Amino acid sequence: MLNFKLSLPTKLVFGKDEHKNVGKLISPFAKKVLLLYGSERIKGNGIFDDVTASLKGSGIEFVALGGVVANPRISLVYKGIELAKQEGVDSVLAVGGGSVIDSAKAIAAGVLYEGDIWRAFNPETRFTPEGRVKKALPIAAILTIPAAGSEMSNVSVVSDDMIDDRGLKTLAESEFFMPRVSIINPEFFFTLPKDQLANGVSDMMAHVMERYFTVTPRTDLTDALSEATLRVIMKNAPILLDNPTDYDTWCEIGLAGTMAHNNVLGVGRLADFGCHNMEHEISALYDIPHGAGLAILFPNWMRYVYKEHIDIFLQFAVNVMGVEGGFRDKESVILEGINKLSRFYRTLGLPQTLGELGIDGSRVREMAERLTGVAYGNEEFRHGFAYPLGTDEWEKILESCL
Amino acid sequence: MLNFKLSLPTKLVFGKDEHKNVGKLISPFAKKVLLLYGSERIKGNGIFDDVTASLKGSGIEFVALGGVVANPRISLVYKGIELAKQEGVDSVLAVGGGSVIDSAKAIAAGVLYEGDIWRAFNPETRFTPEGRVKKALPIAAILTIPAAGSEMSNVSVVSDDMIDDRGLKTLAESEFFMPRVSIINPEFFFTLPKDQLANGVSDMMAHVMERYFTVTPRTDLTDALSEATLRVIMKNAPILLDNPTDYDTWCEIGLAGTMAHNNVLGVGRLADFGCHNMEHEISALYDIPHGAGLAILFPNWMRYVYKEHIDIFLQFAVNVMGVEGGFRDKESVILEGINKLSRFYRTLGLPQTLGELGIDGSRVREMAERLTGVAYGNEEFRHGFAYPLGTDEWEKILESCL
Repeated sequence: MLNFKLSLPTKLVFGKDEHKNVGKLISPFAKKVLLLYGSERIKGNGIFDDVTASLKGSGIEFVALGGVVANPRISLVYKGIELAKQEGVDSVLAVGGGSVIDSAKAIAAGVLYEGDIWRAFNPETRFTPEGRVKKALPIAAILTIPAAGSEMSNVSVVSDDMIDDRGLKTLAESEFFMPRVSIINPEFFFTLPKDQLANGVSDMMAHVMERYFTVTPRTDLTDALSEATLRVIMKNAPILLDNPTDYDTWCEIGLAGTMAHNNVLGVGRLADFGCHNMEHEISALYDIPHGAGLAILFPNWMRYVYKEHIDIFLQFAVNVMGVEGGFRDKESVILEGINKLSRFYRTLGLPQTLGELGIDGSRVREMAERLTGVAYGNEEFRHGFAYPLGTDEWEKILESCL
Repeated sequence: MLNFKLSLPTKLVFGKDEHKNVGKLISPFAKKVLLLYGSERIKGNGIFDDVTASLKGSGIEFVALGGVVANPRISLVYKGIELAKQEGVDSVLAVGGGSVIDSAKAIAAGVLYEGDIWRAFNPETRFTPEGRVKKALPIAAILTIPAAGSEMSNVSVVSDDMIDDRGLKTLAESEFFMPRVSIINPEFFFTLPKDQLANGVSDMMAHVMERYFTVTPRTDLTDALSEATLRVIMKNAPILLDNPTDYDTWCEIGLAGTMAHNNVLGVGRLADFGCHNMEHEISALYDIPHGAGLAILFPNWMRYVYKEHIDIFLQFAVNVMGVEGGFRDKESVILEGINKLSRFYRTLGLPQTLGELGIDGSRVREMAERLTGVAYGNEEFRHGFAYPLGTDEWEKILESCL
């Protein structure tokens, strides 16, 4: 096991009606809050009213800003920062899924940041001492889509606004991005369209798998916890296709989504995150759902790298996918496990080729080069911490995804 | 799943040599610290020197106080409070196992408590508004024995000093008891005697099982995470009997011990804790190791209550103890699982009867009555949140332990 630090300052508040306590929960740090959300749907379904009533009940003023979209844009972050400064808010409350929470993090940091907050995200500047996020307004979140795990993570993913050949989707990490309070009421998930369920499940499974497929030797506990989490997700998600208002099943998915990315499952082991970064390049150019891109990438990535660390992929096939092990050839067990994963994604209605999303091979090389930095004239950066792959290798994986 | 709140403000710092960073880690809140420890052994093995050198390196003053014993006594807590006040310390650093960390929590709260801190522990007063802990000095811990999970829990267990017919071993819970920083260097465990390994393993398994044997329906994720944790503990602990300096194996046990009691495994489900409270009565009167008492109680408690919630005990037998399920009679599967658990305890050298610890049946009724409060002239309080049992029932369980 590797040395590690684990810090989880987010108070997680989970269950029916808990969003109605938001005022009381954030009152220790909020007098006037920026209430950030996505579509206007939350005004039709009562969530907005419940939340604002709770804020008022605790004497907390608020300024509301909607319009965050999937693959959230820096332009709305700028707008939020300006509004927050103008109104003198002291905190940011996100009501939404990962895109809203990620944008809230960028705004909360941006209000106190010297210069353009994009520098904290831009790969060219984010690792410099000046680029780093050094403080942020306190953040709270009310989750409406279980997927990204942003409600208990230190990560924010934002895209610039040029979804064209110069588009960039990138992330920043900071301890100041951890929400102080996150509220999950699984009843909010009842009305999610099936594709959002599927994309969310794919994203949370990817968060577990990015950590699970390590090369660190002897990580028994986090292996077993990760396998347990994946099995529970795969057991429960299909139930929701036919029973979208099954509260107890949504509880499992909602809690699993948070546990998948708060790094409890990742301590002491080298995570990879190559597929995540590759997917960001795909959705930067094509604006596809992150979860769909991950569902296509993962099986193909696994087929490409499994020989590097046979044991963990074998363990995955047997312990997660339930492939019969015994005295069979290891590789056939592994490949059967990968095929079963692919069929599971299909069960949820997820695509398994880029072609299904209308993406052809014309920009495959470009995406690989953008990932490794070659596209920007930099020295090639091999992506994937556990299995570092160069431009040619990522190109091959993308080709196998077509 | 039940509604829940999860708050884990402890920064966990894990791995080789990390104790040497203690000064830097606690410097945000410590200028002058009370360094609390148990036996003088830490002065012979270099830990004390490493820790104090790190404190000095960060310009942190310290006052040292040793002498904490297993089943820690309130008298030493009083001594610590007095010393802390006299020296004007601003924080408490525990270097030791659960007893030292629990005592540090009591001291940290006691310094800022109005009146006698024992009132925060005494069952008669601890639930009153005046009794509750409302603040505490910041606490940090360096763990030397993996067992109690106190390094990331909100609990402190302390005994009064009269280990006779009026002895009391009791606990207080408070959010202010969560350490700010806890450091685990598994190398410290290399020199633990085998009985401390065994007692520690029994304690951490009990922390998982107290939460696991619930009556809450549909707790898939926490069930699966708990089963995974128990399997990993049971796989790794026996390795250490013959290989006490196996660092990677100690890492698994060290991390499992912390995860077992930080409540990640307990969210959304009703835990029991009947056996824990019963064990406190045994060790209050007989001063036996907590882990040994739990290893005796658990199988007997399971045989007494399993019919109340067949499914979870069946799941335990199959998923944790590896009993073949299939079309067999459920009860025989469950009983085989319990017998296998008992044999596992034996493998570690743990007792399976009270007689082995020199305890006869003479005070069995008294212990049961103390647990339920009848001994103090109170109305009977049935102990165990999931399986509430009265005096007669606990008496029967204790008799089956003889």
